[in-house]
Amino acid sequence: MSHGHSIHRRHHGWNNALEPAVRIEPGAVLQFDVLDAAGGQLGPHSTARDLASLDFARINPVNGPVFVEGAEPGDALQVTLLSFEPSGWGWTANIPGFGLLADDFREPALHLWRYEAATLAPALFGRFARVPLKPFTGTIGVAPAEPGEHSIVPPRRVGGNMDIRDLSQGSELLLPVEVPGALFSVGDTHAAQGDGEVCGTAIESPMRVTLRFDLMKREPLAFPRFRTAGPVTRHLDARGYEVTTGIGPDLMVAARAAVRSMIDLLCRREHLTAIDAYLLCSVCGDLRISEIVDVPNWTVSFYFPRIVLE
Amino acid sequence: MSHGHSIHRRHHGWNNALEPAVRIEPGAVLQFDVLDAAGGQLGPHSTARDLASLDFARINPVNGPVFVEGAEPGDALQVTLLSFEPSGWGWTANIPGFGLLADDFREPALHLWRYEAATLAPALFGRFARVPLKPFTGTIGVAPAEPGEHSIVPPRRVGGNMDIRDLSQGSELLLPVEVPGALFSVGDTHAAQGDGEVCGTAIESPMRVTLRFDLMKREPLAFPRFRTAGPVTRHLDARGYEVTTGIGPDLMVAARAAVRSMIDLLCRREHLTAIDAYLLCSVCGDLRISEIVDVPNWTVSFYFPRIVLE
Repeated sequence: MSHGHSIHRRHHGWNNALEPAVRIEPGAVLQFDVLDAAGGQLGPHSTARDLASLDFARINPVNGPVFVEGAEPGDALQVTLLSFEPSGWGWTANIPGFGLLADDFREPALHLWRYEAATLAPALFGRFARVPLKPFTGTIGVAPAEPGEHSIVPPRRVGGNMDIRDLSQGSELLLPVEVPGALFSVGDTHAAQGDGEVCGTAIESPMRVTLRFDLMKREPLAFPRFRTAGPVTRHLDARGYEVTTGIGPDLMVAARAAVRSMIDLLCRREHLTAIDAYLLCSVCGDLRISEIVDVPNWTVSFYFPRIVLE
Repeated sequence: MSHGHSIHRRHHGWNNALEPAVRIEPGAVLQFDVLDAAGGQLGPHSTARDLASLDFARINPVNGPVFVEGAEPGDALQVTLLSFEPSGWGWTANIPGFGLLADDFREPALHLWRYEAATLAPALFGRFARVPLKPFTGTIGVAPAEPGEHSIVPPRRVGGNMDIRDLSQGSELLLPVEVPGALFSVGDTHAAQGDGEVCGTAIESPMRVTLRFDLMKREPLAFPRFRTAGPVTRHLDARGYEVTTGIGPDLMVAARAAVRSMIDLLCRREHLTAIDAYLLCSVCGDLRISEIVDVPNWTVSFYFPRIVLE
């Protein structure tokens, strides 16, 4: 209810029967102390071996739910992302069976990050690369109308694990309300991620998030919508991009081809290992659909910002 | 062979048996007087009715082919996009049966553009919108190894109608050579287009293109690759974006949902007609794959730059 009230209660699935952690009026501001997507199971001394023993029931905890007074099905919950206070620590992993190129990368891999939380200076990736940071929240949504427990992993009509890297400071997100009170939750904060999150993880990093909640009555939405406060790529586009493409009748296959070609390029030119290139692509490279109309073949492009390597 | 040699010869399909229009040494610079994608069948007095009588055999002419001495299968042809001299005239159409939302928009529509070729000031779209311009070439590629005539419409492993809006001034494109001499052609110039080209056409606009050709020996490529000279969206990102999403297990379906939601938003908020919103989305909105790993649902986002409306 009050400005700055901090929400620590967490859950692991979407379920409209969950007791609210807090009840607020529209206009309220709340803080959320968000864990990383491993729910605290990884730390600064973890290794790839620890990925095998992850308890997936504890994956991707979200803080909430928040009951917004007056929110009813057919309304939109407006969430303004006021600020992020990053922890300075994070991880990126290849988890076998997960990720766009799961068939190519079958071994677990874990990269640990340290970054300057105060300055958000680009984070070092070995000797090879410096990744510009832009904190955002990967999982943000409301409870679906369907009763029962729904996995936190896939995003849904009501939001959730959308992993949209521009849900960062200043953005205003509209979520479609499906149950009374909306039952909002947030988690899965990332210090950086490219469009696609191709290896399946970003710079997974605990942080404190401050959000404001407003209500738009009778604003039916098919899916979440948002507005950014300004440009979204200027922190990384200054030197332009290396771009690989995949062309064909299937967007998924084309996306895989584009990312594979970028990994090949990074390995040959920058002497990265393939797995390092894959993780790096996930935290800073962008999948774009260049054309989706020239039947029967579509063009998917993967944009890698050169500033990371220069 | 000479700097500034201008190539006027055109063809309408990819065919490695075509006689070269010119033979050049690597390092050469050529000019191409490119027609619009209708091959000159539309003009400043055309109407939507004229779309019905378009001769599709004359669609998307390309200038060439250029035989590059020394180019052999397994090499990469490097094409540097040196400059564009736009004509100041263009068109955007909804052609029934073509386009991402062909099922929603069954009637032909034609929008004619006038823009300042010298300044490239944003082009007016009715009273509602001003579209920042960035000329590029939609169709650029080399002849495929397979004999016979291949439609110019779909892009291929060897490039072609890729419609990548960042193949603009200063970009360096690498194309995989599949036949001796490469047999390069270019056409389909656009004054502006968003990622996706969702209605099926851009600001289709004749212009003169100047290109330099170099050869990278033994550089096998699965698909075309390029490098941009600098940032790619700063001409339109200053005010941020309105973003709609589509979420689900099929990228194509999700892309359609995201574009439909943006059209709805533009109609409600800006009082555009649906068809105008669709055409406008095609020339300035971007389809991005926000996440492609959170099984079983992917997030496709459609970014519409607010500067167009402000």
